[in-house]
Amino acid sequence: MASTPFAGVLVPVLTPFTPSGEPDAARFIAFCRWLLDEGADGLAIFGTTSEANSMSSGERMELLDRLVASGIPAGKLMPGAGACSMTEAATLIRHAVGHGVGGVLLLPPFYYKGMDDDGLFAFFAGVIDRVGSSALRIFLYHIPPQTVLGLSLDLVGRLIRAYPETVVGLKDSSGDWNNTAALIERFPGFAVFPGSEVFLLDGLRKGGVGCITATGNVNVVGIRKVYQNWRTPQADSLQAEITSLRKTIQAYPMVPALKRIVAHFHHDPDWAAVRPPMTALNEAQSKALIGDLARVGFALGERRREAAE
Amino acid sequence: MASTPFAGVLVPVLTPFTPSGEPDAARFIAFCRWLLDEGADGLAIFGTTSEANSMSSGERMELLDRLVASGIPAGKLMPGAGACSMTEAATLIRHAVGHGVGGVLLLPPFYYKGMDDDGLFAFFAGVIDRVGSSALRIFLYHIPPQTVLGLSLDLVGRLIRAYPETVVGLKDSSGDWNNTAALIERFPGFAVFPGSEVFLLDGLRKGGVGCITATGNVNVVGIRKVYQNWRTPQADSLQAEITSLRKTIQAYPMVPALKRIVAHFHHDPDWAAVRPPMTALNEAQSKALIGDLARVGFALGERRREAAE
Repeated sequence: MASTPFAGVLVPVLTPFTPSGEPDAARFIAFCRWLLDEGADGLAIFGTTSEANSMSSGERMELLDRLVASGIPAGKLMPGAGACSMTEAATLIRHAVGHGVGGVLLLPPFYYKGMDDDGLFAFFAGVIDRVGSSALRIFLYHIPPQTVLGLSLDLVGRLIRAYPETVVGLKDSSGDWNNTAALIERFPGFAVFPGSEVFLLDGLRKGGVGCITATGNVNVVGIRKVYQNWRTPQADSLQAEITSLRKTIQAYPMVPALKRIVAHFHHDPDWAAVRPPMTALNEAQSKALIGDLARVGFALGERRREAAE
Repeated sequence: MASTPFAGVLVPVLTPFTPSGEPDAARFIAFCRWLLDEGADGLAIFGTTSEANSMSSGERMELLDRLVASGIPAGKLMPGAGACSMTEAATLIRHAVGHGVGGVLLLPPFYYKGMDDDGLFAFFAGVIDRVGSSALRIFLYHIPPQTVLGLSLDLVGRLIRAYPETVVGLKDSSGDWNNTAALIERFPGFAVFPGSEVFLLDGLRKGGVGCITATGNVNVVGIRKVYQNWRTPQADSLQAEITSLRKTIQAYPMVPALKRIVAHFHHDPDWAAVRPPMTALNEAQSKALIGDLARVGFALGERRREAAE
């Protein structure tokens, strides 16, 4: 099996939109740079948190072009290449591999439900064969709350056996620790990332390689403290801290809440815009969220300074 | 409210694929022509049965170009323009309207779950406003078994009120007669098509305008008999006949079964191919299906001759 090009804390980067609703490349580039400066180990752009499926393939490819042209190292990028069709997924992947990305995150085809493992295997195999690149590294994306179509352990095993140099990892956003643990146990050397920092310490202790988590958009520093110190006596209390912050945030709809937090702490109100079908937090929700964060002592800058000490 | 450009029996046309897995325009055109010759009142190409979401937008647009160029009347076409992003849906719709199609069938954005009516309204409004064409007629596509995200009666009402000349009908593939009945009752003049011929007669008696049904690919003639004779004493027994045939077919996975039937009765084995994540029926299933059809006396040609008498 090929070794993973990624480990640590990866951020599924929020996508800013202009007041007229178009992807905002300038803000996106600046935010990606800030996340890397904060210490993010990689940027999983175009994921669920990124509202990637609310963008056309053309919009995603153009944003990636702009991001790479801006000087962000392509090797740090793990763009989502999810699409319901093999052909669209292959187009997105070819484009990303052409830029030299570290890997891509690949959803199952999520329109049809109840598809069996043979059909899903044929989909992934069809995509990989169409791309036909030895440079391709795929991270499977298991997120049944959105796809309502999961990747079974058997399917993951078949894909690893068929494409050992290509299928190198998985993001598990099932929210089911037993599934994450089973993946890590069953596939040694396969890079398993829980889709939430809540499982970061448990994952690392079991053999996971980090996490890819939405709240990384606002708390890279805190989450990386767990990653850096997971073998120390402080690990459990550091984990408790990031779990608690996650719970504070996820009392609100996650993507609008994160965008509101970015808007507030980066002093840039336009950042709060989401694309339909999502809706931004209303004023009352926004105030409540910022109040909740103040009560738990959250502040982007302070956390960063603490970490540097 | 604008009157509906469609009524009767519409067929969500199966999409044939070549042995190498590409959309097969020649077979597609021939099949569309055959369906119209059989009496189909319209062709809802690029729907769920068409495996449209297993094709890229580019593939769909090219097939439509080829179909219209072949002389199939665009006014008979109701292409599906479903996509998770407003921008991709708008691109597909602009292209279809440019060809002069009778209308388009539009899914809700089906990646994110649990989106509220405000967000879904903003999505549909965003698409309509981006297209900005007075020629556009939209049929909403309610198919919770695949989207796991429904269109509430309130949302449908809001869209009709906001865009009375544009949002003119709905395909209800919920399989829930109570929902279909409620739509017909609540929105007089709005064209409601059940997504299965099982509800055709009940729908017509209540004020529905026809149906858009997968099995139309193999039984237009039988289903149209109900549509043509729904006020006659024979209506219930004609309905019982098509309901029974539907049940025979849907004992198998629907799309692969329909393609196998087409392959068998059109003497064209390549027609059985599906695109991943779907899988074709295996030999045993195929034999059992054709056997079941023989037992209920199904034959494409005979039905057609009967109807012509």
